[in-house]
Amino acid sequence: MKLKRCRLRDLGISIGKFPTGPKNSITDIAGVKVGHSTIIKGTGKQGTRKGAVRTGVTAILPNSGNEYTQSLKAGGFVLNGAGEVSGLTHIIEWGIIETPILLTNTLSVGSCAESAVKYMVQKYPELGNRHDVVIPIVGECDDSWLNDIAGTHVTYKNVVEAIETANTDLVEEGSVGGGTGMICCDFKAGIGSSSRVVKIGNDSYTVGILVMCNFGEMEDLRLDGYPIGRKLCSKFKEYQRRRENYGSIIAVLGTDAPLTVHQLNRLSKRVGLGIGRVGSYAANGSGEIILSFSTANKIERFGDSVYYSFKALHDRHIDPFYLAAIEATEEAIWNSLTTTDSMHGASEHFVPAVPLDEIKKHEV
Amino acid sequence: MKLKRCRLRDLGISIGKFPTGPKNSITDIAGVKVGHSTIIKGTGKQGTRKGAVRTGVTAILPNSGNEYTQSLKAGGFVLNGAGEVSGLTHIIEWGIIETPILLTNTLSVGSCAESAVKYMVQKYPELGNRHDVVIPIVGECDDSWLNDIAGTHVTYKNVVEAIETANTDLVEEGSVGGGTGMICCDFKAGIGSSSRVVKIGNDSYTVGILVMCNFGEMEDLRLDGYPIGRKLCSKFKEYQRRRENYGSIIAVLGTDAPLTVHQLNRLSKRVGLGIGRVGSYAANGSGEIILSFSTANKIERFGDSVYYSFKALHDRHIDPFYLAAIEATEEAIWNSLTTTDSMHGASEHFVPAVPLDEIKKHEV
Amino acid sequence: MKLKRCRLRDLGISIGKFPTGPKNSITDIAGVKVGHSTIIKGTGKQGTRKGAVRTGVTAILPNSGNEYTQSLKAGGFVLNGAGEVSGLTHIIEWGIIETPILLTNTLSVGSCAESAVKYMVQKYPELGNRHDVVIPIVGECDDSWLNDIAGTHVTYKNVVEAIETANTDLVEEGSVGGGTGMICCDFKAGIGSSSRVVKIGNDSYTVGILVMCNFGEMEDLRLDGYPIGRKLCSKFKEYQRRRENYGSIIAVLGTDAPLTVHQLNRLSKRVGLGIGRVGSYAANGSGEIILSFSTANKIERFGDSVYYSFKALHDRHIDPFYLAAIEATEEAIWNSLTTTDSMHGASEHFVPAVPLDEIKKHEV
Amino acid sequence: MKLKRCRLRDLGISIGKFPTGPKNSITDIAGVKVGHSTIIKGTGKQGTRKGAVRTGVTAILPNSGNEYTQSLKAGGFVLNGAGEVSGLTHIIEWGIIETPILLTNTLSVGSCAESAVKYMVQKYPELGNRHDVVIPIVGECDDSWLNDIAGTHVTYKNVVEAIETANTDLVEEGSVGGGTGMICCDFKAGIGSSSRVVKIGNDSYTVGILVMCNFGEMEDLRLDGYPIGRKLCSKFKEYQRRRENYGSIIAVLGTDAPLTVHQLNRLSKRVGLGIGRVGSYAANGSGEIILSFSTANKIERFGDSVYYSFKALHDRHIDPFYLAAIEATEEAIWNSLTTTDSMHGASEHFVPAVPLDEIKKHEV
Repeated sequence: MKLKRCRLRDLGISIGKFPTGPKNSITDIAGVKVGHSTIIKGTGKQGTRKGAVRTGVTAILPNSGNEYTQSLKAGGFVLNGAGEVSGLTHIIEWGIIETPILLTNTLSVGSCAESAVKYMVQKYPELGNRHDVVIPIVGECDDSWLNDIAGTHVTYKNVVEAIETANTDLVEEGSVGGGTGMICCDFKAGIGSSSRVVKIGNDSYTVGILVMCNFGEMEDLRLDGYPIGRKLCSKFKEYQRRRENYGSIIAVLGTDAPLTVHQLNRLSKRVGLGIGRVGSYAANGSGEIILSFSTANKIERFGDSVYYSFKALHDRHIDPFYLAAIEATEEAIWNSLTTTDSMHGASEHFVPAVPLDEIKKHEV
Repeated sequence: MKLKRCRLRDLGISIGKFPTGPKNSITDIAGVKVGHSTIIKGTGKQGTRKGAVRTGVTAILPNSGNEYTQSLKAGGFVLNGAGEVSGLTHIIEWGIIETPILLTNTLSVGSCAESAVKYMVQKYPELGNRHDVVIPIVGECDDSWLNDIAGTHVTYKNVVEAIETANTDLVEEGSVGGGTGMICCDFKAGIGSSSRVVKIGNDSYTVGILVMCNFGEMEDLRLDGYPIGRKLCSKFKEYQRRRENYGSIIAVLGTDAPLTVHQLNRLSKRVGLGIGRVGSYAANGSGEIILSFSTANKIERFGDSVYYSFKALHDRHIDPFYLAAIEATEEAIWNSLTTTDSMHGASEHFVPAVPLDEIKKHEV
Repeated sequence: MKLKRCRLRDLGISIGKFPTGPKNSITDIAGVKVGHSTIIKGTGKQGTRKGAVRTGVTAILPNSGNEYTQSLKAGGFVLNGAGEVSGLTHIIEWGIIETPILLTNTLSVGSCAESAVKYMVQKYPELGNRHDVVIPIVGECDDSWLNDIAGTHVTYKNVVEAIETANTDLVEEGSVGGGTGMICCDFKAGIGSSSRVVKIGNDSYTVGILVMCNFGEMEDLRLDGYPIGRKLCSKFKEYQRRRENYGSIIAVLGTDAPLTVHQLNRLSKRVGLGIGRVGSYAANGSGEIILSFSTANKIERFGDSVYYSFKALHDRHIDPFYLAAIEATEEAIWNSLTTTDSMHGASEHFVPAVPLDEIKKHEV
Repeated sequence: MKLKRCRLRDLGISIGKFPTGPKNSITDIAGVKVGHSTIIKGTGKQGTRKGAVRTGVTAILPNSGNEYTQSLKAGGFVLNGAGEVSGLTHIIEWGIIETPILLTNTLSVGSCAESAVKYMVQKYPELGNRHDVVIPIVGECDDSWLNDIAGTHVTYKNVVEAIETANTDLVEEGSVGGGTGMICCDFKAGIGSSSRVVKIGNDSYTVGILVMCNFGEMEDLRLDGYPIGRKLCSKFKEYQRRRENYGSIIAVLGTDAPLTVHQLNRLSKRVGLGIGRVGSYAANGSGEIILSFSTANKIERFGDSVYYSFKALHDRHIDPFYLAAIEATEEAIWNSLTTTDSMHGASEHFVPAVPLDEIKKHEV
């Protein structure tokens, strides 16, 4: 019997020891919204602007769309940098996020950045009038195995759709938005999310992860450590895989815990460890880039205040967040795999969905 | 008598002890081409899409436009990162440059990146057919004081023009290309270039710098160390300056010396010291980002070879390159100032040219 | 029946897909020597200079002890930096190793560095005569749970012993040298090593790892992904563990593959992923620091040559090294666990050996 | 008439626009203490343990010697890393300073680190009893041109003297402590300090710098930008200079402004710009390493609190601190030059003091 596509936990499998948030999604963090614009058309012989389009854009609004006027503390880490997150240099320098975060395919980064500028100029006329500027955040993975990437099909319309439909619901996962044409360990993947609740004394905080997941080779795939990829390899022997394109992953971590920029940078590294646990060795051609933000301690863009007061977690209490970030990352990646169906795409390529019965069989 | 705008050396002033290349320009390095597309229109009352357009794009082709098929070793350094060079993460990770380098205004980075993708897809159909991708390199400074930046006037046409008119002549300097609307230490600036020849044993190598120069405050401006800005302040007391926007500088260093990626990263830091010597303190709002490449030891994109043989300079001989990079950076910045005229722009802003007679008067 | 302490493979368990070198040890790389000096005395009530001494020093000679006259290309990565590798800044800057690598306890870093200076001054009188200097490399983990660390028992004699007894045999593992008093995931650990052979075309290269292993919590321990720590926790419920001291790990990677400094830096990150796979989340208090060197392309200290030619591996062939580094790291950590017996130490602390029958039972 | 050695301002020369603190010294910051132990003996033919000893150790106590129980926020930057600051990795990771900062010669780093451990173990018995550890901070420059460095003459006694005599007076400058045998731009140098007062609204903050100064070549020396080294070169033509040893500089910045770790890291870079302005090109062999700390927002080592609240300066007000740091760095370096006399040392080397009359003549 074929199981209906679902999230990992719906198969009875959970990863780690921390409880999830109510939605087990990055949107468990108050104020975080996510939206997608998905483009699927054509049947996929080949060639630029002729073949299958399997792409899109995902928008994460860390502060409900108010990032420009009220920025969030932010950090990041590059595990392997054969990829792009436009705006990363700025995030690292100032330690803040002041625009939505967009995720798309490699060759549409420019289009999304331009669109984000146009959108923000329209939304905030002061951008033009005050001689102010912003640097949009646009992350990418390479969906060229399934998508006519050279056709650069993501346009202003898609960016606006992703931003304006963003909401606080459980994040739609799988082959949607920027993740539409993505592949993980030779299985169809895309967007995935997960969250964890960390208790520190009497306080509860949420750590949420959203990934656009596109990395890896089948034999390396691991489920909570279990090397399930080795088994799956025999089942999928005939299957034609992408070669010389290992893929990438962009991961976004959000939390409502009061972390400093310095702590967010450090926390971002642990997301890298989570990616490693699912089977990534951060291949030469991989862009494994992590962004992190905290919704506590918001920073006003305008105003004259000289100081701000900041509540911060002592480092001696940060370890649970490290573990929670690893767990949520693993589960978010798996959710990007289990929620989606197989896909036919460009150049007549086919990418199978990960077989749920095999997953379910494995009980750790 | 008003002096005709010219390069710093035409005023009888030279910086440093190394001789320049024949053109005293980054194009002294064999294979390096530079082109501009300049957009000047409107008289500049204000507001988005209504005011003065004073912007453009500059293209640097480090390997004569063959960067995609034959990449160059590259590195970089972020002195202050409140700016953007799209593709920087990739350069740092792989240590190569595989696309042209584009320089433009802050809000046109996306447009230029998208245009570069379209241009390269057309030039290299394998990009679509081989499921290959590239990440364009686009650096920016904020020209919003003079330019209707929110109008995002740089389009595909401009990018193609900059790339296709690129040549090996002395680089056109001042208010051209990406530098059209730029300001340095409250004076009109833009693109500048300079080069130095370093002799190591019997071999001569060239270090060339190109800057898009947009940083600083008048009182901090220095000429070969001499604090000329303090004097100029009294002359320009009435003059209305930009505030809360310190500006930025993107610097590109090229050399034909056989340097490794590791050495190029280190060399990039010295460009930062050169910027500091002209008066930058790398302000909070400044994007002072440096890229470096070597035209020796080219890397073929396609092919099966497992190894390559690399000739490299011993570190014990690298110091002259450090000094040469500092000198050329200082002079490139000054060339961006002395070559351009004053400009009227958006919001009826006016930016004066640096007074050449004052410069000439100063003999170090 | 109690199994005799042995290496992981002697239990029938191997990690990963690459074959090991003949010794499955970092000494499989030609020219790499390792020696230990182990200090065990006292029965361990407590207090400075009164209690149990369970410590020592391990010396790795990457170039057979000729590191000063003939340096090796080197790199590194800090996964979490609550630890110390003296000399790391220099390694990262110059990309070379020019002294032995010493591993010891946290409070003996100074003593070892001083001893290494004295040893080298005696061995190379030119150090004094030529006005030359060196910066010794000394890594540490905190063995204070079992060792009277504040007594600073490691002296010049121990450093010389470790260096002078260094040899190319299979590395002695477990509670020896710098690893004498170390603990991993609440089990007795110490020094471990492993190697992998990577074939690139017709060439074979070795990747070897040596760890001084001192990190983690029992419940997180994993064996080739399998979360064995969760099971072991129930068996060791009563057992008193160290708290507020998560520990650390120093890992040294060597290879004879012709890698550049840039590639060694990148490779070092993958060792971090291997550490993560065994269960580390790189805790706040952990010093997870990785050094890497290549024995190909040696650099002469003295001489006038301006250039050197080196053979380098194309990045497109580097992925197997990434995987091999992860595998060897996991196995080296496990070898540090399975080879050692339980230990009683300072403050009457007891640390059990990992139970081999439980390990053996688990067949992945 | 020969001028008496004095500080730069005593010659009528000041650098920059910010006022100094009352002592124009890092000790203007409340709670910062500095002490020296100076070792001068022997007349200096040559050879290990036979020649001239011209060395010592300088101790900076950022929190009056209470660093262990009450740590300070800290950061750093490596401009060029051919040098050592033991403990730097830890400072960067945790963003705190929890031990005194010691400055000495290259080959005495180990001895100082060991001595600091012994000193702290004695002062804080809990270090042994609580299984706690510390990683001492020891920076170095190479004084081998004048000092019998291979003799490693700095001992426990010297470290204790430097720490215990530390006080809040104007820092003793020139050839004292760690700076005893140091050289800057071929002139005798050593320890220098300077401070600046920055007003933000109604609040005044102090930025203080202390340098151990040992870098550069005469022709590059600059005084407030003015290339005085070029002139001095002709006067000192005959003079035998050190070669193949460019030297180094360790700079320590303190401030009472409420800066975050992230801000302190960024501020540290500007100290590098200040070093560059005096003439450093951060040579290949140079260790130009900067540490920064803030005495605001102290962190208790022991206790159970989960959070701490801190007051932080908005980034938009940080620029004056950048400028002040550059100014103070320049002046601190100059104070290390003008305050000291000439010195004869090892191998019959002679290093002249910078001629004060030439300095005074120059009025910027």
